[in-house]
Amino acid sequence: MPHAEPLLLELFAIFVWAKVFGEIFEQIGLPAVVGEILAGVVLGPYATKLVNPGTTTFSIAQLGAIFLLFTVGLETSPRELIRVGAASLRISLAGVLAPFVLGFAYLRLVRGDPTHEAIFVAAAMVATSVGIAARVMGDLRVLHTRVASIILAAAVVDDILGMIVLAVVAGLASSAGVQWVQLVVLLVEAVAFTVFMVFFGSKVIHRMRPGVERMSTQNAPLILALALCLGLSVAAERIGMAAIIGAFFAGLSFAEYSDEWRLAPRVSAITEFFAPFFFFTMGSRLDLRVFEPKVIVACVVVTVLALIGKVVACGLPVLREGWLSALKVGVGMTPRGEVALIVALVGLQMKMMSQAAYAIVIFMTAATTLIAPPVLRYLFKRDKPEAAT
Amino acid sequence: MPHAEPLLLELFAIFVWAKVFGEIFEQIGLPAVVGEILAGVVLGPYATKLVNPGTTTFSIAQLGAIFLLFTVGLETSPRELIRVGAASLRISLAGVLAPFVLGFAYLRLVRGDPTHEAIFVAAAMVATSVGIAARVMGDLRVLHTRVASIILAAAVVDDILGMIVLAVVAGLASSAGVQWVQLVVLLVEAVAFTVFMVFFGSKVIHRMRPGVERMSTQNAPLILALALCLGLSVAAERIGMAAIIGAFFAGLSFAEYSDEWRLAPRVSAITEFFAPFFFFTMGSRLDLRVFEPKVIVACVVVTVLALIGKVVACGLPVLREGWLSALKVGVGMTPRGEVALIVALVGLQMKMMSQAAYAIVIFMTAATTLIAPPVLRYLFKRDKPEAAT
Repeated sequence: MPHAEPLLLELFAIFVWAKVFGEIFEQIGLPAVVGEILAGVVLGPYATKLVNPGTTTFSIAQLGAIFLLFTVGLETSPRELIRVGAASLRISLAGVLAPFVLGFAYLRLVRGDPTHEAIFVAAAMVATSVGIAARVMGDLRVLHTRVASIILAAAVVDDILGMIVLAVVAGLASSAGVQWVQLVVLLVEAVAFTVFMVFFGSKVIHRMRPGVERMSTQNAPLILALALCLGLSVAAERIGMAAIIGAFFAGLSFAEYSDEWRLAPRVSAITEFFAPFFFFTMGSRLDLRVFEPKVIVACVVVTVLALIGKVVACGLPVLREGWLSALKVGVGMTPRGEVALIVALVGLQMKMMSQAAYAIVIFMTAATTLIAPPVLRYLFKRDKPEAAT
Repeated sequence: MPHAEPLLLELFAIFVWAKVFGEIFEQIGLPAVVGEILAGVVLGPYATKLVNPGTTTFSIAQLGAIFLLFTVGLETSPRELIRVGAASLRISLAGVLAPFVLGFAYLRLVRGDPTHEAIFVAAAMVATSVGIAARVMGDLRVLHTRVASIILAAAVVDDILGMIVLAVVAGLASSAGVQWVQLVVLLVEAVAFTVFMVFFGSKVIHRMRPGVERMSTQNAPLILALALCLGLSVAAERIGMAAIIGAFFAGLSFAEYSDEWRLAPRVSAITEFFAPFFFFTMGSRLDLRVFEPKVIVACVVVTVLALIGKVVACGLPVLREGWLSALKVGVGMTPRGEVALIVALVGLQMKMMSQAAYAIVIFMTAATTLIAPPVLRYLFKRDKPEAAT
């Protein structure tokens, strides 16, 4: 395999650098993902030029995004989702609308960006990352509290809403101009896909269960889950949505059997391998030359709007439980993650987004992910002595 | 990600078809790997043309080969290897030499093939697949018997010898003509790498252990194992060996900690995802047009020589334990696997092998893998009533 060497070397370098930056970030108490993205920025073609991800690495990065969302789906119980769904839906909907409207208004009206670009950046401001908040609250051992379960449920609903927004935005952008009929068709399609997968995905797997357990193939459930993950990713793209949406719903369908079939630890091992390529590649595409004063201002404004939008819109519905709880829920919903990055990626690939807009999204994602954990930690710690006294 | 669709669709099709063929083979009592290879032959560009693996898929297939050997290494205890090594080395050495000499003599002297091609095909006849024999004996619940442990130990040593042969052969072929100095250098290099990794790989990991356990990164041991797998693969290629050799030794270094760090199930999940692409791609490269009468004769002769070589050379050293034990060991050593396929792949990539020679290796690999299990089953079952009376 001598001519494959450049690829292997590239994969090795990306994997190790992403993990080294991630470890350094963890050591100083910051989220590892931001370190992995920064590794891509620092080592990528726009800065030190040490690693220049090629097309194959890029494909592997896309598999990373698919497996990231597959894992999130696998850890989301559809039954639990239906139970808390109605309550969380209010928080999520408000938290999706507010940043989108704020972001779009600022970019389109204040900055005068093209409509499609403003829509993409605004769409990236929508989805909360389940992982970051869960990690912080897990470290603080407060995952069992009411506030934590509100945050987690709302963040998951948020992910779904974010993907619906992405589906609609990507569908819109690929056609010439905004067509209302198409918008409605896409929205209906996305909602129908979501409702079907949330309510029936699990039941389909339940039906297939006896067959799966009779199969002779070793690890048949894992194989079936992987096949469905790839299959629904393809299907999602076919109907004009992003592949990750299919992957998320594939995970969701298997969530109820995740323990029984020991899927979660094994799928997350696959994600452990693929994910660093995704985060590194996202960072490596950030052209540092775009950071002129006007773009830096936009980065900061969009980040502030992304923060305010979530804190206010998600906190308000919880206000009757006290301002501290409201603030915790609001802050817990601020970190953006994979979905924001993927929106930016789709936008860049469809040439709907300039390098500057891409930079704004990466900045906003990294900043919200960095700001939320310490604030959340402070709020929960502030709470503890009160609870003790 | 719209323009990635062809890739995802291709990956989905390959994964599902490979697994469907594998399942059908398992259902009729044949090894799944042969089914996965056959899927590639049947659906590939030389037959029905339904799936034509592109360059990215090919890279993913190579990662499949790397993870296959990484898993084999992870399941091989270096301590156990050192313990049974001396005894198994005799069986392995004989079993490596005999098929190589028989194969080379037939191809070079009888068929008059070019030297480099004869060397490559002969090298592919060398390595026993640990997986096939282990699976059959596991199904028969005879893994605890003395014969089984002889077979497994010898098969592992065999894999290592096979990879040393590959290293030497690939190194030789890449230079112009056979140079004895270079041959000796490569042999020393390969043996030194092997000895170092078998005796010290595990100790290096042992030294790093406190550091690994202090790391903040989640799943630090898995991350480190994956990094070493990629790193040693690159290193192996750098010194002129195949990447899989590095991957195998990376696995071997972590084998002692595989249980403690729960590496085996998680790494094999990654392999489950990647491996089907390897086997399918190997099959898809088989040009069916080469099967003219002369090549078919060569396929059969090479397969027979591959069988006789192993049965006689591996059986003889065990003869004093009775002819039935000798026959079991001999037959248990006959199935070829990943290493044979990788030798063929390297040969094809280096243009050291014609399509006909590639076809001979694929045929030999599939045939030995198909023939061994039923014969082994028959021999072990024949044994059981005797043991009972």
